[in-house]
Amino acid sequence: MHGITSERLVALNAAYARAIDEEEFERWPEFFFTECLYKLTTAENLARGFEAGLIYADSRAMLADRIAALREANIYERQRYRHLIGLPLIRGEKDGAVEVETPFLVVRIMRDGRMDLFASGRYLDRIAEDSDGHLRFRERLAVCDGARFDTLVALPI
Amino acid sequence: MHGITSERLVALNAAYARAIDEEEFERWPEFFFTECLYKLTTAENLARGFEAGLIYADSRAMLADRIAALREANIYERQRYRHLIGLPLIRGEKDGAVEVETPFLVVRIMRDGRMDLFASGRYLDRIAEDSDGHLRFRERLAVCDGARFDTLVALPI
Amino acid sequence: MHGITSERLVALNAAYARAIDEEEFERWPEFFFTECLYKLTTAENLARGFEAGLIYADSRAMLADRIAALREANIYERQRYRHLIGLPLIRGEKDGAVEVETPFLVVRIMRDGRMDLFASGRYLDRIAEDSDGHLRFRERLAVCDGARFDTLVALPI
Repeated sequence: MHGITSERLVALNAAYARAIDEEEFERWPEFFFTECLYKLTTAENLARGFEAGLIYADSRAMLADRIAALREANIYERQRYRHLIGLPLIRGEKDGAVEVETPFLVVRIMRDGRMDLFASGRYLDRIAEDSDGHLRFRERLAVCDGARFDTLVALPI
Repeated sequence: MHGITSERLVALNAAYARAIDEEEFERWPEFFFTECLYKLTTAENLARGFEAGLIYADSRAMLADRIAALREANIYERQRYRHLIGLPLIRGEKDGAVEVETPFLVVRIMRDGRMDLFASGRYLDRIAEDSDGHLRFRERLAVCDGARFDTLVALPI
Repeated sequence: MHGITSERLVALNAAYARAIDEEEFERWPEFFFTECLYKLTTAENLARGFEAGLIYADSRAMLADRIAALREANIYERQRYRHLIGLPLIRGEKDGAVEVETPFLVVRIMRDGRMDLFASGRYLDRIAEDSDGHLRFRERLAVCDGARFDTLVALPI
């Protein structure tokens, strides 16, 4: 038994979304294990077996690099996100991690106040307790149904 | 006391939404009792007392028929949904079922990638434990505030 | 220890949203302590230190006045809201109240059926148990990321 309740998953997702939406991007890598996998991709890419997504990182250090690059490129100046994360569905347990699917919706707010429905999709996660007792992602695939990716440089979702 | 926690309602709704959004439509009838009521309607129709909605079924078999008909008509080829289901509000208990209200929002994703806010509304549910221990719907009314129903044949919400 | 679980916060938010969305506005003040603070504002206003928002009230009586004024102005005839409230994040505890952040998204439905993404943002709340055992808001700041405030008179969010 994994002892990971929906309540803890909800708290994890709430904190994760807050870090991105309140533009505390440097805290984003802390939600992952040191060795991890993060991919931002689309359902179409996933179905076709394309490995590379819009963002790919396989360690917490690479996630931090990604954020540093985005900060330098001033991507964050132009837009903000607001995540609405749905109800987590625990699908099973494997290799000491729970497998969870969670739908999301992301609203994008431009600096001039324009607001649009930016992306919807689901997270495919493998979540476990780290040595400090916190839940973290061993793997988080953010699979967008579709999205208005009009920039080459994407913020994490 | 019904012993039906928010956590179980959340899990039920998460699984229900996933079946539709991941296009596992044949699993949709399994969320209902053999004898049940499902209606997809609008707040305006409900206020006016119109009985027929966009979808009406009063047994699990009729729900299955509905899905078969939609599969034949290839409705599913053109579009997908993404549900964001809100927080369930338990309103009371009657005849061995809990009465629950739950808001929803549905994003529609067309095959060409276009995405729009398709419908918002609330589920009016009567939920009970079936003989196998699973929670199922005795009744689910999906009442849309408004919706872009531009087709005569609607997917379930 | 405050003993305020996520489950109770979820139930509070679900009931709060329902009162507004089902146009039972007269019930809205009941979600607040007699002495309270409610502000509807934008992230930009908050960052600039502007005190006045779109709605400001510092007592339950003032909230009731606000509703009465909106009823007289027939604002409610033209539009409805549908809230999707996200996962509550408990940030801490101070002066006997829990401090909670909760994202929201509001869909607006006009009487002619048009529907749009009206606002996204987060609630910054101070919540405590009232003498009757109900959770109520000592303070609720509804901070919109951006919003289509095209009227001078806003509904509460």
